Amino acid sequence: MRPSGRDLSEMRPVSIETGVTKHAEGSCMIRVGDTHVLCTATIEDRVPPFVKGTGLGWVTAEYGMLPRSTTSRMRREATAGKQGGRTVEIQRLIGRSLRAGVDRVALGERQITVDCDVIQADGGTRCASITGGWVALRLAVNTLMKAGDVISDPLIEPVAAVSCGIYAGQPVLDLDYPEDSEAGVDGNFVMLGNGRLIEVQMSAEGATFTREQMDALMELAETGVGELAAMQKAAASA
Amino acid sequence: MRPSGRDLSEMRPVSIETGVTKHAEGSCMIRVGDTHVLCTATIEDRVPPFVKGTGLGWVTAEYGMLPRSTTSRMRREATAGKQGGRTVEIQRLIGRSLRAGVDRVALGERQITVDCDVIQADGGTRCASITGGWVALRLAVNTLMKAGDVISDPLIEPVAAVSCGIYAGQPVLDLDYPEDSEAGVDGNFVMLGNGRLIEVQMSAEGATFTREQMDALMELAETGVGELAAMQKAAASA
Amino acid sequence: MRPSGRDLSEMRPVSIETGVTKHAEGSCMIRVGDTHVLCTATIEDRVPPFVKGTGLGWVTAEYGMLPRSTTSRMRREATAGKQGGRTVEIQRLIGRSLRAGVDRVALGERQITVDCDVIQADGGTRCASITGGWVALRLAVNTLMKAGDVISDPLIEPVAAVSCGIYAGQPVLDLDYPEDSEAGVDGNFVMLGNGRLIEVQMSAEGATFTREQMDALMELAETGVGELAAMQKAAASA
Amino acid sequence: MRPSGRDLSEMRPVSIETGVTKHAEGSCMIRVGDTHVLCTATIEDRVPPFVKGTGLGWVTAEYGMLPRSTTSRMRREATAGKQGGRTVEIQRLIGRSLRAGVDRVALGERQITVDCDVIQADGGTRCASITGGWVALRLAVNTLMKAGDVISDPLIEPVAAVSCGIYAGQPVLDLDYPEDSEAGVDGNFVMLGNGRLIEVQMSAEGATFTREQMDALMELAETGVGELAAMQKAAASA
Amino acid sequence: MRPSGRDLSEMRPVSIETGVTKHAEGSCMIRVGDTHVLCTATIEDRVPPFVKGTGLGWVTAEYGMLPRSTTSRMRREATAGKQGGRTVEIQRLIGRSLRAGVDRVALGERQITVDCDVIQADGGTRCASITGGWVALRLAVNTLMKAGDVISDPLIEPVAAVSCGIYAGQPVLDLDYPEDSEAGVDGNFVMLGNGRLIEVQMSAEGATFTREQMDALMELAETGVGELAAMQKAAASA
Amino acid sequence: MRPSGRDLSEMRPVSIETGVTKHAEGSCMIRVGDTHVLCTATIEDRVPPFVKGTGLGWVTAEYGMLPRSTTSRMRREATAGKQGGRTVEIQRLIGRSLRAGVDRVALGERQITVDCDVIQADGGTRCASITGGWVALRLAVNTLMKAGDVISDPLIEPVAAVSCGIYAGQPVLDLDYPEDSEAGVDGNFVMLGNGRLIEVQMSAEGATFTREQMDALMELAETGVGELAAMQKAAASA
Repeated sequence: MRPSGRDLSEMRPVSIETGVTKHAEGSCMIRVGDTHVLCTATIEDRVPPFVKGTGLGWVTAEYGMLPRSTTSRMRREATAGKQGGRTVEIQRLIGRSLRAGVDRVALGERQITVDCDVIQADGGTRCASITGGWVALRLAVNTLMKAGDVISDPLIEPVAAVSCGIYAGQPVLDLDYPEDSEAGVDGNFVMLGNGRLIEVQMSAEGATFTREQMDALMELAETGVGELAAMQKAAASA
Repeated sequence: MRPSGRDLSEMRPVSIETGVTKHAEGSCMIRVGDTHVLCTATIEDRVPPFVKGTGLGWVTAEYGMLPRSTTSRMRREATAGKQGGRTVEIQRLIGRSLRAGVDRVALGERQITVDCDVIQADGGTRCASITGGWVALRLAVNTLMKAGDVISDPLIEPVAAVSCGIYAGQPVLDLDYPEDSEAGVDGNFVMLGNGRLIEVQMSAEGATFTREQMDALMELAETGVGELAAMQKAAASA
Repeated sequence: MRPSGRDLSEMRPVSIETGVTKHAEGSCMIRVGDTHVLCTATIEDRVPPFVKGTGLGWVTAEYGMLPRSTTSRMRREATAGKQGGRTVEIQRLIGRSLRAGVDRVALGERQITVDCDVIQADGGTRCASITGGWVALRLAVNTLMKAGDVISDPLIEPVAAVSCGIYAGQPVLDLDYPEDSEAGVDGNFVMLGNGRLIEVQMSAEGATFTREQMDALMELAETGVGELAAMQKAAASA
Repeated sequence: MRPSGRDLSEMRPVSIETGVTKHAEGSCMIRVGDTHVLCTATIEDRVPPFVKGTGLGWVTAEYGMLPRSTTSRMRREATAGKQGGRTVEIQRLIGRSLRAGVDRVALGERQITVDCDVIQADGGTRCASITGGWVALRLAVNTLMKAGDVISDPLIEPVAAVSCGIYAGQPVLDLDYPEDSEAGVDGNFVMLGNGRLIEVQMSAEGATFTREQMDALMELAETGVGELAAMQKAAASA
Repeated sequence: MRPSGRDLSEMRPVSIETGVTKHAEGSCMIRVGDTHVLCTATIEDRVPPFVKGTGLGWVTAEYGMLPRSTTSRMRREATAGKQGGRTVEIQRLIGRSLRAGVDRVALGERQITVDCDVIQADGGTRCASITGGWVALRLAVNTLMKAGDVISDPLIEPVAAVSCGIYAGQPVLDLDYPEDSEAGVDGNFVMLGNGRLIEVQMSAEGATFTREQMDALMELAETGVGELAAMQKAAASA
Repeated sequence: MRPSGRDLSEMRPVSIETGVTKHAEGSCMIRVGDTHVLCTATIEDRVPPFVKGTGLGWVTAEYGMLPRSTTSRMRREATAGKQGGRTVEIQRLIGRSLRAGVDRVALGERQITVDCDVIQADGGTRCASITGGWVALRLAVNTLMKAGDVISDPLIEPVAAVSCGIYAGQPVLDLDYPEDSEAGVDGNFVMLGNGRLIEVQMSAEGATFTREQMDALMELAETGVGELAAMQKAAASA
C-alpha cells in the first residue's frame, strides 16, 4: 500500500500550464502532484566556445530550488557561494537529456538555456524538470520557426522522465517524497516519447537489487513516459 | 503621459494570493502589475548568535530573482558564486523594514526568515517584496498565535513599500520598468500602515532634485502605502 | 545633551589634507572628528564595458576599513574572501553620489576610481568618504585639465554628505559613534554644494519616525553640507 | 574492430598493487590498461554530524585527477577554486557504491575516507576508482579487525565496477579513452561480486538506445565484474 | 651610482611615529623613504586552537596594500575574493619573524595580531612592516605590563628587517622600488637587534649569485639592522 | 645522533625514475627516502600575458599533496576551495628556482609547466620537487630539441635543492620529517650544479641563529647539491 493510496503503476496527477512568464521565449509550470517546477527557455545567439563556428546549436540547463520549496528551509545556494553537488549533477542530467532529443544541425548555431526552478518539492523534481523543460524548449523553438529563423524542426519526439523504485518490497511508479525517502532502490528513466532510452540511472543507497527488479522498474517507466509524452504534446500545441 | 496610460498617482493593479506553497508557515504571491514575487516565511527556533539568550525575536529576509524573471536572462547568482551588491542591498532593506514593524519582545526568542523570490520582474521588486513579505510574516505569526506559542500580537500595523519618481518631469507613483529605467530620480518609501516612516531612500542617478520634488514624492507615497496596507490586511484575514 | 558636549547642530571639527600620497592623481585625508578616511582618485583610460564607445566618462568608488580602524578588530575582508554587504552598499552609494556631480560628457571616455579607506572610525565613515572622495576627484580632474586632456570642467559643485539622527529624542547633526549606536533613527544626506539633493537615506532600526522629524533632519543636513562644501572648495584650491 | 585489437568482451589487463603508501591504513595502485589510480583509505574516529550518535559507520570518497594525468594538461582544481561538476558527480558515485557493500552496524561509529587520485587516465577512471577503492577499504578494515576494533566483518562481497558502451555499432566491454570519446552510448555498472546490482548509469550523448542494447551491455558488465571481483579478493589477501 | 644618489651602504631616511590610531593597543606609522606602512597591534584573549590550553602566547600578522599605494592602481584583494600569493607569503614571514623575538611563556595565553597596511609603497614594504610591526607589538605589550597582566617582559631585543641586493653589479643596502625592479638578486634579512639571525631569504630572478656576494649582502644587512634597532628603541620609549 | 642513524652530512637514499607517465612531455618520480614526488612537465604554445610577444620562454610550477600523503589525512585543497598559503609559497619557489637555470631566449616563446605532486611525504618535499622538477623539465626540453623546435640548449646546469637545519644542536643535511618537526632552525638551499646560488631561505621558528651556524649549513648544502646534480644528469641521460 502506497502512502498516497495510489496503485503501483499510477502516476500522480500531472498538469502543464504554458506561457506563465511574459519574458521567456518559452515557459511552463509543471505540476506532478505537489512537485511544482517553473521551466523557462531562453534563446541566445552566443554559444559556448566549444560550439563556436560549428554551425551546430546547443541546449543547456540550470536547476535550482527556492529555499522554502522543501519541508524545512534549505540554505540559498547563492548565499552558500556555490551550487551543491546534487544541483550540479541534476542540471547536467537535464541538459544532457534534452540535447538527446535535439537535432543540433537543424537548430543552427544558437543556444537555448532551460532554467528549471523548483517552487514546491515533493519528490521527483529532476524528472519533472526534464519533462517540463522539454515543453519550454518546444515553445521556444516554435517562436524560432514562426520567425523563420529555423526551418526544419529540430525536435521530433518529446523527452520525458519519470522515477520508479522499490518501495516496501514492490516496484512503484513516480515516487513522491514519502516514498523516495524510504525506498532502498530508485531510478530515473529518461526516454523519448517513442520509447527509445536516453538515460537510465538506478541506484541503491545501502542496498542492492537484481536484474529482475531492474526490468520491472523499466516496464513501469515505459508506461509513465508514454503518458507524459501525450501531455507534453497537448500542452505545447494548446 | 505615462507609458502605461496610468494617472500620475495611480498604482498598478495589485493582488495578493495567500497560501501558495504547502511547506512554508506563511506564504503569498504578490502581483503588482507584471511584477510577481513569491514570499514565504519560515519559523525557526534557532536565532543568530547576537540574539541568543536575549529573549527577543529576530526577523530577517533574503531576496532572489529567477534567471529569466527579467527581459534578458540574468546569470544565476548560485553559479556566479555570490550574491551581487544589488541583491545584498535589497535583502538588508527588506529585513530592516519588516523588523521595524515587529515587537521583538512579543515575538519571543525565535527567528522568522522571509524569502522573496522574484518570478517575474517589471520594476518595483523590492517594494513588492516588502509588502508581500509582511503578509507572509503575518500568516506565519498567526500560526504561532493559534498554537499558543505567542500570546501578545507582535505585529500591530502592516509594513508596506512603494516607489515614486520623477518621470518626464512629473512626480509619479509606483514606477514600472519602462519608467524606472528612464527616471533620473526615484525613491523607495517604507511605512507603517498608519503613515509613520520606516525608511526613505531617494536617489538620483546622474541628476539631482529639490526639497519640493522630494515632498511631492512623499505625498504620493503616503497615498500608495495607504492602499497597500488595506490590501495586506484583507489578504491576511481572508 | 550629546556625549561630546556638542550643540545639536554642531559638526565635529573637520580637516581635509590634500596630496597625502605621491602615486594617486588626487588624494586627501579627511578627518571628521576621530573619523579619518584616506581618499585617492585614480585616472584610467579603460572604462567598463557598458560605457565603452559612448564617449562618456565614468566615476566609481571602492570602500574599505583597515582591520583595526574600529574599537575591536574586524576581520580583514580579503581574508574573509569577499566584501561584506555593508561594504558593498557603501561603495555603491559613494560612486552614485559622486557621479551625480559629474558632467560625464565633459569628462570624456575615461574612468576615475575613488578609493576610500577608513584609517580610524568613529561614526559617519560613509559621509566622510563622499566628502573627501569629491576632493580627491576634484584634484584628479585638475590634473586632466592642466594637461589639456579635459577642456570643460566636468565638476561644477562639490558633492558632500552628512549624517543626522534622532538621539535621545532630539534631532542632531553629524552623529559620532556613541550617538550612532544609540540612535533609533538616522539618515545620510548627500547634496551638491548648492543644496540640491542627490541621495537621502533615512532609516529606523526597530523604530519609526514622522514627517516632522524627517524635515528637522533635512534642515540640519542642509546646514552641515553648506559648511562642508566651503571646506572642500578651500582644500581643493589650496 | 576495436582500436586496441581487443575482443568485444575482453577487458584490458588489470593489476592491483597493494601497500603502495606507508601512511594510509589501506592503499593500492590499480592499473586498468593505461588507467592508473592510487586509492588510499583513511580511518578516522570522527563521523559526519548526521551519523553522530547512531552507532553506525560511514564510508565516503573523494576523487581527483593529477593535472597531467590526461593527454593535455587540465587545470588543477585547487587553483580553479572548486571541484568541477564531473568530479563531484564521480566522488558521490564512488562513496554511494562502496557504502552499498558495507554493513554499517558491523563497522561501528567511525568513518573511512577513500581517496582515489588518477595518476594516468585512459578512460574508465571512475570504475577503476570503485574497484581499487574497495581494495583499499578492505585493507583498512582488515587493520581494524586485526586490532579487535571491529569484530564482525562489515565487508562480505567486493564492490566492483566496469564500463560498457556501443562502439562502432557493437556492444563492447571496458571502454578505453579512444572508444569512450567515440561511443554514443555508454554505461557504468557497479555490482557486488555475487552479481547483485548497486548502480546502473546508462547515458547517451546526442543519441538514444534500445532495451535490447541495454540488455547486451548488462551481460558484458556481469562478465567484467566477475573477473574484477576475483582479482580484488586475490589482491586483498596477498 | 644609485638612482637616489645614496651611498651603497646608506639607508633611506627612516621615521617611526607612534600612537597614530586611537583604537589599537599599539600603533605606529613607519616611513622608510617613500614607503609608508601603518602598523597596529591588537590584543585578544582568544588564541588559535593549536595554542589553546598551552599557557603560551601567540603573535600573528596580516599584511595588505591600499589599492593606490602603488604607481598604478592594484585590484583590491577583498574584491578579488582572496589574498594573493605574495600577500600570504609576506604576512607569514612577518608573523614568523615577530614570534622569533617573543618569549611566549612570558606573554601568557593571549594573542597579539599585528596588522601592516601599506599606505604608500616604494620598495621594501615587507621589511618596513616587520620593523614597524615590532614597535606596535612593543607598545601593546607595554600596556599589558602596565596593567600588570604580564609581569616578565616577553620582548628583549627588537626584531628588524632590511633588504639588500646586487644593483648594477654592486651590493647595496635598502633597495627602493627603482632598484628593486632592476636587481637580479635581492634578499631580505630579519635579525634581532643584537645581530642574531631570524630569517634570511636571498633570491635571484633569472640569475644566480656566489657565496662572496651573499656574504657582502649579509654585512650590509647587519649595518642596517643595527641602525633600525636603535630607532625602534627610541620610538617605543618616546 | 639522528633518528634515522644517518651521519650529520649523509643524505637519504635518492632515486629518480623517469618516464613514469605516458602523457607528459617529461616526467619522473623522485624518491628521497620516504618522500616521493611525481613531477611532470607540460609544454604549451600559449604563454602568460606579460610574456606574449617578447620571444622569451616561461617556466612555471604547481605543487600539491595527495590528501593521504601525510601521517594523518589532510583536507583536499580543491575541496577547501583554494590553495593554502604554504602551497602557494612552495610553488612560487619551485617556479622561480627552475627559471634561474633556464636561458629564456633559447627556449623561445613557449611555456613549460612543471607539476609536482607529493605522493608520500616525509620532509623535504619542496626540495625534492625542485630537484625532480628539473629532471622533468630537462626531458621535456629534450623532446623540443629532438624535434628541432629548440636549437640551442636552454638548460646548462641542473637546478637542485636540499634542506639543512640545526637538529639537537648540530648542523645536519637533508632533514626528514622527525628532524624537521624538531629543528628550531632550518633552511632550503637551491643551487646550480656548479655551486652558484639561486635561493637561500633560512628560517627560525621561535629561535634565532648565528652567522657561523648559517655558514655551516651552507657547507652541508653544497655537498648535498653536488650529489643531487650528478644523479639528475644520470637520470636525464638514461
